[in-house]
Amino acid sequence: MGELKEEKATSYPKTSQNKVAIIGATGYGGLQSVRLLESHPDFLITYLGGKRSAGKRWSEVCPFTSITQNLEICDAVPEKIADSADFAILSLPNGEASQLVPELLDRNVRVVDLSADYRYRSLTHWSQVYVQESLKFKRGDHDLCKEAVYGLPEWKQHEISEARLVASPGCFPTASLLALLPFLNQGLVENEGIIIDAKTGTSGGGRIPKEAMLLAEASEAISPYGVIGHRHTSEIEQLSSEVAGKLIQLQFTPHLVPMVRGLLSTVYCRLRDPGLTAEDCNTVLEAIYKDYPTVEVLPVGRYPSTKWVRNTNKVMLSVQVDNRTSRLILMSAVDNLVKGQAGQAIQSLNIMAGLPLERGLPLETYYP
Amino acid sequence: MGELKEEKATSYPKTSQNKVAIIGATGYGGLQSVRLLESHPDFLITYLGGKRSAGKRWSEVCPFTSITQNLEICDAVPEKIADSADFAILSLPNGEASQLVPELLDRNVRVVDLSADYRYRSLTHWSQVYVQESLKFKRGDHDLCKEAVYGLPEWKQHEISEARLVASPGCFPTASLLALLPFLNQGLVENEGIIIDAKTGTSGGGRIPKEAMLLAEASEAISPYGVIGHRHTSEIEQLSSEVAGKLIQLQFTPHLVPMVRGLLSTVYCRLRDPGLTAEDCNTVLEAIYKDYPTVEVLPVGRYPSTKWVRNTNKVMLSVQVDNRTSRLILMSAVDNLVKGQAGQAIQSLNIMAGLPLERGLPLETYYP
Amino acid sequence: MGELKEEKATSYPKTSQNKVAIIGATGYGGLQSVRLLESHPDFLITYLGGKRSAGKRWSEVCPFTSITQNLEICDAVPEKIADSADFAILSLPNGEASQLVPELLDRNVRVVDLSADYRYRSLTHWSQVYVQESLKFKRGDHDLCKEAVYGLPEWKQHEISEARLVASPGCFPTASLLALLPFLNQGLVENEGIIIDAKTGTSGGGRIPKEAMLLAEASEAISPYGVIGHRHTSEIEQLSSEVAGKLIQLQFTPHLVPMVRGLLSTVYCRLRDPGLTAEDCNTVLEAIYKDYPTVEVLPVGRYPSTKWVRNTNKVMLSVQVDNRTSRLILMSAVDNLVKGQAGQAIQSLNIMAGLPLERGLPLETYYP
Amino acid sequence: MGELKEEKATSYPKTSQNKVAIIGATGYGGLQSVRLLESHPDFLITYLGGKRSAGKRWSEVCPFTSITQNLEICDAVPEKIADSADFAILSLPNGEASQLVPELLDRNVRVVDLSADYRYRSLTHWSQVYVQESLKFKRGDHDLCKEAVYGLPEWKQHEISEARLVASPGCFPTASLLALLPFLNQGLVENEGIIIDAKTGTSGGGRIPKEAMLLAEASEAISPYGVIGHRHTSEIEQLSSEVAGKLIQLQFTPHLVPMVRGLLSTVYCRLRDPGLTAEDCNTVLEAIYKDYPTVEVLPVGRYPSTKWVRNTNKVMLSVQVDNRTSRLILMSAVDNLVKGQAGQAIQSLNIMAGLPLERGLPLETYYP
Repeated sequence: MGELKEEKATSYPKTSQNKVAIIGATGYGGLQSVRLLESHPDFLITYLGGKRSAGKRWSEVCPFTSITQNLEICDAVPEKIADSADFAILSLPNGEASQLVPELLDRNVRVVDLSADYRYRSLTHWSQVYVQESLKFKRGDHDLCKEAVYGLPEWKQHEISEARLVASPGCFPTASLLALLPFLNQGLVENEGIIIDAKTGTSGGGRIPKEAMLLAEASEAISPYGVIGHRHTSEIEQLSSEVAGKLIQLQFTPHLVPMVRGLLSTVYCRLRDPGLTAEDCNTVLEAIYKDYPTVEVLPVGRYPSTKWVRNTNKVMLSVQVDNRTSRLILMSAVDNLVKGQAGQAIQSLNIMAGLPLERGLPLETYYP
Repeated sequence: MGELKEEKATSYPKTSQNKVAIIGATGYGGLQSVRLLESHPDFLITYLGGKRSAGKRWSEVCPFTSITQNLEICDAVPEKIADSADFAILSLPNGEASQLVPELLDRNVRVVDLSADYRYRSLTHWSQVYVQESLKFKRGDHDLCKEAVYGLPEWKQHEISEARLVASPGCFPTASLLALLPFLNQGLVENEGIIIDAKTGTSGGGRIPKEAMLLAEASEAISPYGVIGHRHTSEIEQLSSEVAGKLIQLQFTPHLVPMVRGLLSTVYCRLRDPGLTAEDCNTVLEAIYKDYPTVEVLPVGRYPSTKWVRNTNKVMLSVQVDNRTSRLILMSAVDNLVKGQAGQAIQSLNIMAGLPLERGLPLETYYP
Repeated sequence: MGELKEEKATSYPKTSQNKVAIIGATGYGGLQSVRLLESHPDFLITYLGGKRSAGKRWSEVCPFTSITQNLEICDAVPEKIADSADFAILSLPNGEASQLVPELLDRNVRVVDLSADYRYRSLTHWSQVYVQESLKFKRGDHDLCKEAVYGLPEWKQHEISEARLVASPGCFPTASLLALLPFLNQGLVENEGIIIDAKTGTSGGGRIPKEAMLLAEASEAISPYGVIGHRHTSEIEQLSSEVAGKLIQLQFTPHLVPMVRGLLSTVYCRLRDPGLTAEDCNTVLEAIYKDYPTVEVLPVGRYPSTKWVRNTNKVMLSVQVDNRTSRLILMSAVDNLVKGQAGQAIQSLNIMAGLPLERGLPLETYYP
Repeated sequence: MGELKEEKATSYPKTSQNKVAIIGATGYGGLQSVRLLESHPDFLITYLGGKRSAGKRWSEVCPFTSITQNLEICDAVPEKIADSADFAILSLPNGEASQLVPELLDRNVRVVDLSADYRYRSLTHWSQVYVQESLKFKRGDHDLCKEAVYGLPEWKQHEISEARLVASPGCFPTASLLALLPFLNQGLVENEGIIIDAKTGTSGGGRIPKEAMLLAEASEAISPYGVIGHRHTSEIEQLSSEVAGKLIQLQFTPHLVPMVRGLLSTVYCRLRDPGLTAEDCNTVLEAIYKDYPTVEVLPVGRYPSTKWVRNTNKVMLSVQVDNRTSRLILMSAVDNLVKGQAGQAIQSLNIMAGLPLERGLPLETYYP
């Protein structure tokens, strides 16, 4: 039967190590983390950090998501966090996380960070991409940038298991890389000329009110943004290059779609061997991901809707090949707030805690 | 911790009695039933009935909701259903259910019917309200109409526990009655002049394609429909009269809202005692529903959004009193496909199987 | 043929009197005013006032709506406004308008104000309803409150034609009053027990970013707000009382609907004569509004969708009668930003300038 | 001032030649044509053809769009059409148009056809792409396929002016070609490796109810469809090849977006000269389209939203260049039902009638 029942069959002891602090609890990343961890059988939320809501009980701030102890939301004080938690999920604006992470690691709190602060292997690289943030926040944590593990669990499972600090990937990189990496890894596609045309719901823009994200503005509209300059480009290129063993430069264009959740990446590559079929390419994906219940490869000819993975920690992948043009077209759908953000962070948390990576995470949507 | 964990604590044996057939499995009512029962720890889906999809495997029809055994969808043959299931959930067009129910009961299959066929205590009443259906389908099952229990679990728990046949309420009656009945029951509001202004998402119109339910038509629009003539009026009046102990005639106006799921009833009544406050009325609700985790009464001044109960089997209630006009305003939000339909049916199934009524049902949404 | 062609037939001279300033040009009220006046054959926009965008050209701020001269947006300086314009449309936050209006009137600029500042016949009444604003903005303009005309053109045409200052109604009052007033005026419904259940798109909340109006929050949701306390209640009651010749107290409950534009009022009254039919009531509406192309009365049995009036300056009305309960149900649909706001203001402007009231205003939607 | 006023300034005589029949009047293409022609100063609708609604008055079928004479909808009888109209707009399913067109041309009715029946220069080509339709409808009109003009007015103005038969382009080809052709025409991009990733609202799927287009299904979802096999590919390639003077084979992937109207094409090409800047490319577009008020080229760095052109007959174009990859990225937004369908057909009609091509067509949206 379903994922919930399977979980019941196994019996991981709920040890005292699995206490988690969520910092930045009332933004969308934090909200998802609270919701997912609250129904997780092996973690206990023990600390909620938040600036704007500090001093309030959780139920005042979020009448729609209850937590057992109805904790008070507090400022993020490293000592207190370390006193109450073994792990911390950080859902803070870029730059801010870097001010807290070293303090937490020093106090033996293992961290999964949702921001971009530790996604680059070098601090210099980060400063080049996150220019404004690097001016605002002083950082000297070169070593931590090097130490941090890029938290794409299907590709970094071993490293995550031993990590003190996991940098959870951005939503666009998650969807794009899970589709693209198998083909780069096996050298099946050309390194040049890769194009990623991505589409996201507006919750990706966060919960801080912005004019462009108002329903009155974003509804009944689709538009590109961040064309050629989007920060996730460098993040996708970094891991692509690592996996391909060669510098990859690619085209990435995000679009804003009038829906709350969901992210679709359509990836265009050129096949090295023009004789490969869609079925061949499907086999490649199935082989690589066969042990990962978080990845579903659709039969050839079936294309994923973001709706099929909404509220789940699953990515749905599909391939198609155009023999006229020797193009491989990869389609990858995720929920940007779950597999694209908080759910994936908890996947890393599972691995760090020695649990199966899909443990406690929803894998089936409610349709429609 | 959350509902999932509590379930783990208790230990109802998964007996062989709990096999369920779902007839009409690919409409929205059926889909929800499949999804909910598949992750339910105490029921096993053993039969999927469906006309249009008969002969196909479930995964071909619904790539977005997996079931363990990937059953084949079959015609609804009473003998076969009885061979494989103890219970049946029927999600069929009005009238059709009445052709199957007697056959199932004769074979000792206990039935929860999502249609209106057994919601009225008399067949005559049904024939007056469902005129077209009564012309199309021959019925003589007066006794079954009398025997059937109206499946509003918070008000009929005992009757449901012993029922062979449960008529699960309509979505509008569910939301409206849960708000209204406590006040009728205690004689706190006048029987005359009750007005129910209700709003529903388009999934309430079912999965059979209709022009009015196209996104291109229904999006960016709100409109009333079925004004004065809507069939749910009589259903609401029947139980209201029963609980008030006096004939109730009321005004019910549904509206179509551009969203997938969610149903809000705004109910206007006149208080008998103009000195009653909103706090008093809240106390009434809290007292009546204190043992029901499926009902949440919001603090005075907080009004429910359908989004707060999406994908859950919970109703959110709120009251307000206008002392200038002696009006009591009741607000009631449900997910029309879960608490308003399939989830509530499974609540009845839980009771029939001797389980806690909320067993295995989601009570927390994923926000946003 | 359509409204545009009829306009061509008539020939009002485009005199120099018809220069208009729009103050608060980049909010939704201002944007609509710009768009509507720019395609109006008899008005010329000569001044654009705006704080946040002061100093910028219009095309920088609004790439999606062009104006001929691509004016620069300026601070709202009364002298400059008076130098360039005969009329001013003010689309400012409540309270702010009152600081500018006296200065404009002194300089012979005739004003149509979209705020609530002059909608009440007495300043005291305004201060009771707009408490925060009355604390923030000092006002002593009792006389102007008395002088101002409530700009509901179908009911105040003569007064508007001679007015220096028109207070354009709120969106909810517009839709509700146009449906209700004919029946109050003719004494056909009881003064007690009127209930208005209203539903609006999110653009009614304005363009200043607020969390509740984010697509991620407001989409896939309906919820009530301002229950019993909404400010438009008093505005509706004021004109209702005036027209009924007796104090009216009624129930008004607004709801937020996941769409950009559109507002529907469902109004419940009790008929004095229970023998009246829906057809009788339709005749009442048709007689009263027969000379107003801005009002369309639907045939009995047809209920309005807000989509049918989107982007138009038309209200669609429909009536239904429930003889069981002696209830009259009135349904009224408008575009909240056009007939509910900027379009109606231009209707007043038309009347003030001696033009037909529908002049230059769109009356037909683009469907779907 | 705006487009409406400029029209007033010119004075084309409304001659008797400009009577138009609309066949297939109640689908979305027909509805738009009715709405647009009804407010056009130089055309008169004299015949409405429709199968399902034959025998009904227009107002019964479309309460939301009025036409002056409230014509009765009739079967499409060639003699009667020829008796009452000089022009016909055909909005019929693919294949059906070909059964009517020869009869109309024989009777001297000039035709603008919205279907794909005459978009290919050869009947054989059509039969290869529209296989099912070619089996269902017998055709031998090779000559008409050759004679028909592909109705992309900005590229075929002269041919359209003299045409008896115009094949109005599909929505995706319209948006894609207007962006791409200038660069192919001038040899600025490579012919190989062009990728078009397109996104459309659901009204593109027509008004016949289909499950996938229900709001409950299509809302809160984005998904690709017709990957590698979509019929518009061949249409785009045909004109691209003609303009480039060389066979072009490209990649075209459409996606379904949860909105009513709007279509965005994101086109990726490789620049021949890697030194070209976005400004250079903008200059190319501006030069080619400088006389076309139906094309707006946005400043570099500003990207189009479909919302900015909703309900208008305008295409908004934007370019960006990534010097790292030598890619030219073209973005093109249209309203799929106006510039992408009925509006463009009327552009052709304007040209055929000797009017300016933008005559009577809306070029400014109502925002938001």
